[in-house]
Amino acid sequence: MTSPKLRLDISMSLDGFVAGPSRTLEQPLGEGGEGLHEWVFRLASWREPHGLSGGDAEAVDNEVVAEGLRATGAVVMGRRMFSGGEGQWADDTNADGWWGDDPPFHVPVFVLTHHARETVIKEGGTSFTFVTEGVEAALEQARAAAGDKGVSLAGGANVVQEYLQAGLLDELQIHLVPVFLGGGVRLFDGLEPIELETMRVIESDAVTHLKYRVVN
Amino acid sequence: MTSPKLRLDISMSLDGFVAGPSRTLEQPLGEGGEGLHEWVFRLASWREPHGLSGGDAEAVDNEVVAEGLRATGAVVMGRRMFSGGEGQWADDTNADGWWGDDPPFHVPVFVLTHHARETVIKEGGTSFTFVTEGVEAALEQARAAAGDKGVSLAGGANVVQEYLQAGLLDELQIHLVPVFLGGGVRLFDGLEPIELETMRVIESDAVTHLKYRVVN
Repeated sequence: MTSPKLRLDISMSLDGFVAGPSRTLEQPLGEGGEGLHEWVFRLASWREPHGLSGGDAEAVDNEVVAEGLRATGAVVMGRRMFSGGEGQWADDTNADGWWGDDPPFHVPVFVLTHHARETVIKEGGTSFTFVTEGVEAALEQARAAAGDKGVSLAGGANVVQEYLQAGLLDELQIHLVPVFLGGGVRLFDGLEPIELETMRVIESDAVTHLKYRVVN
Repeated sequence: MTSPKLRLDISMSLDGFVAGPSRTLEQPLGEGGEGLHEWVFRLASWREPHGLSGGDAEAVDNEVVAEGLRATGAVVMGRRMFSGGEGQWADDTNADGWWGDDPPFHVPVFVLTHHARETVIKEGGTSFTFVTEGVEAALEQARAAAGDKGVSLAGGANVVQEYLQAGLLDELQIHLVPVFLGGGVRLFDGLEPIELETMRVIESDAVTHLKYRVVN
């Protein structure tokens, strides 16, 4: 049995940003950052796991998102992406994450943190397990939980960079949005060169899905 | 009659660079910068205007390049792209450009400069006219020379940024190459937001051609 693949799906502006400037707890995507995700908010395949009805089920984008969800058996994310605060759990207003009682993941999620705590079990199949031993340990736990599916790397950018530079990412799908943020967080900044092979490109009016294999 | 369109074709790395770090007269594309253009060097449609035989005439990339050349009646470029030196013409080793007696343009080229000089007539239909009155004047002269074709903006990045921010660019085709340069010259850096519409996406193994209309 081959090891479950680690995949990244991430929306990026044409000027290379994955979040806008001036991020706060109230505006976690930064100024203009919502514009990176408008293409996905309107899709049935995104709305359904978020407990929302309706949405476009016909767009080519819808199947791209559905495909990614079907292939995901576990998720790895950074601590800041999980709660946005300082990660000193007792003091955080957002210590159980952004997503309420029924988060949209519906699979085990592994959160990288420096502050150990008990696993949080949510509704709908989502759990949050906190991993303090670093990126390799988190990936190992996620792979064990993913079964015959893959592991999705949810971000943020610093965690993605760490996995990329450690040679642990297998596939990278960039959803390239033709907007400009003019500042914020760049996904590809100060990295050692990595080698990619183009797997697939899918175009829609709103976004271009660029799928690459990472040659590790 | 509608005014000839101003178009940009530019190769960009996945991390957003259009030239590598440490550019010199000997290495005008910077470290690793050649890697941005390998996809085009091997094409028949690129080799032919450069006076080179052979090359791949079947690749989808070949028609993308041929289409761009067919649509080009005049070229605008920055002074540094033209000669790489300081632009104090009498002192420059490279004062007549990089391309020898028969440059690959085969149309009138308008070079933005602060130092006036006479037009240089080369073989094969290429001329270099030096424009000291700024980007709008250069575009106006290029449009007059382009006839019923368009004007191609050849770079460099600072000139492209000036045209973009002045609202003068009509179409933008990015040849996105899945390599990382890790540093150098970013095309989209410190720009005021601009609005784009996706016109077309063409994929090959080597590069993804992303064509956008600029909404000015």
